Amino acid sequence: MSPKEIRKLIREGNFNRPTAGYCPGYAQANLVVLPKELAYDFLLFTQRNPKACPVLEVLDPGVRSTNFLAKDADIATDIPKYRVFEKGICTGEYNSVEAFWRADLVSFLIGCSFSFEEELIQAGIPIRHIEEDVNVPMYLTNIPCITAGAFSGNMVVSMRPIPYHQIPAAVNVTSGMPRVHGAPVHIGNPLAIGIEDINKPDFGDRVTIKPGEEPVFWPCGVTPQAVVMNSCPDFAITHAPGHMFITDIKNAALK
Amino acid sequence: MSPKEIRKLIREGNFNRPTAGYCPGYAQANLVVLPKELAYDFLLFTQRNPKACPVLEVLDPGVRSTNFLAKDADIATDIPKYRVFEKGICTGEYNSVEAFWRADLVSFLIGCSFSFEEELIQAGIPIRHIEEDVNVPMYLTNIPCITAGAFSGNMVVSMRPIPYHQIPAAVNVTSGMPRVHGAPVHIGNPLAIGIEDINKPDFGDRVTIKPGEEPVFWPCGVTPQAVVMNSCPDFAITHAPGHMFITDIKNAALK
Repeated sequence: MSPKEIRKLIREGNFNRPTAGYCPGYAQANLVVLPKELAYDFLLFTQRNPKACPVLEVLDPGVRSTNFLAKDADIATDIPKYRVFEKGICTGEYNSVEAFWRADLVSFLIGCSFSFEEELIQAGIPIRHIEEDVNVPMYLTNIPCITAGAFSGNMVVSMRPIPYHQIPAAVNVTSGMPRVHGAPVHIGNPLAIGIEDINKPDFGDRVTIKPGEEPVFWPCGVTPQAVVMNSCPDFAITHAPGHMFITDIKNAALK
Repeated sequence: MSPKEIRKLIREGNFNRPTAGYCPGYAQANLVVLPKELAYDFLLFTQRNPKACPVLEVLDPGVRSTNFLAKDADIATDIPKYRVFEKGICTGEYNSVEAFWRADLVSFLIGCSFSFEEELIQAGIPIRHIEEDVNVPMYLTNIPCITAGAFSGNMVVSMRPIPYHQIPAAVNVTSGMPRVHGAPVHIGNPLAIGIEDINKPDFGDRVTIKPGEEPVFWPCGVTPQAVVMNSCPDFAITHAPGHMFITDIKNAALK
């Protein structure tokens, strides 16, 4: 299926699963929707923290159609599962947020590490959570983001165990893709970034770290969501974890 | 002199020349200052046009000290020459803008191609305007920027003539520095991007194009200034052309 075909299925209510593995080669994106009055602080937060929050597109207030990432897409209906938040609390999950749409809502689409995982696999680097068919493990760290207005908090990272001899290649491959989080932020000792038990991720699932492998940590697209929720905005919409916006843009075009 | 020493000289009124060639190895930055009410549209403009407008740092409203680019700096006094604009018209040039400062002013510092010229020279690529000791030639093009709210307009480019066989190296060197404009936006025929006479730049000076060379065009930091002036904001401050903010950051750190 093409991205356009799968977005149509989603829009019509005929696809409500996680999007990992669909439309290989095409970038998927995280979504954060905020009222216009918070949009400057959030955009500034992404400018100050580009590794965790690489913005791919920002829509004008009220607008639901993307220009750059996809044609004929509707950001309020083309994601399989959304979360709605009021004052920082999730008040429900929905397959469409048309009923919640307002003229003052600004949509931010943010790069996703799914894009660089394909490149890692092509470089012969194993991706453990794909091998074990689970969600990538994600952790809250003690690495502070740079505050911007209402938004502050620590970085969330994703972890992939990499064999020692392949770590340089993993760094090189991902460094070349800054629009989808770029290079790792930390390699090795989890305690050094405030992770007490590598087997108990804060989001996603644990994966096996084999002998001869180091845990490698990348900035994660959950960071902006965690930071937004931390600031308790009156109203926000995000995608549900793993249920991403599938774009018309090839991963290779984000290098 | 270190960047800190030259900023002190500037602040004390003892240095009011163009900054090109000072503090080699250190990045210099363009300045745009706007009232907070226009800051979201401008920040969004830079997000949508990152090649012409690579933002290095945005200060909080009213704040004059940088965090990332320099320590102990004052953005209202540490640039040798400023321009003040009212409703899009330049009302004067000043060596300090302390007297104009307001609590609602937001300062944007934007990457400058001075940074990649050093890398080009180190790669053995001639930089004609440096050889001829003039300002780099800059041109208005027909390449539209992506509009954001109040801000729209075409891209301004800088031009350097490069020998055919060195064009690939020039592309490679600058592609690796996206925070200071990155790769060329056009190589060859000036008419294709709306430049009718390569010997009559819209800003800066003409330079010699020798046999065996092609004009190579890079997105230029004059773009955000031109676009801001085009939209006639009630009030704005910029640096005067060639009179940049000298940072504590090494060019190599912007790769």
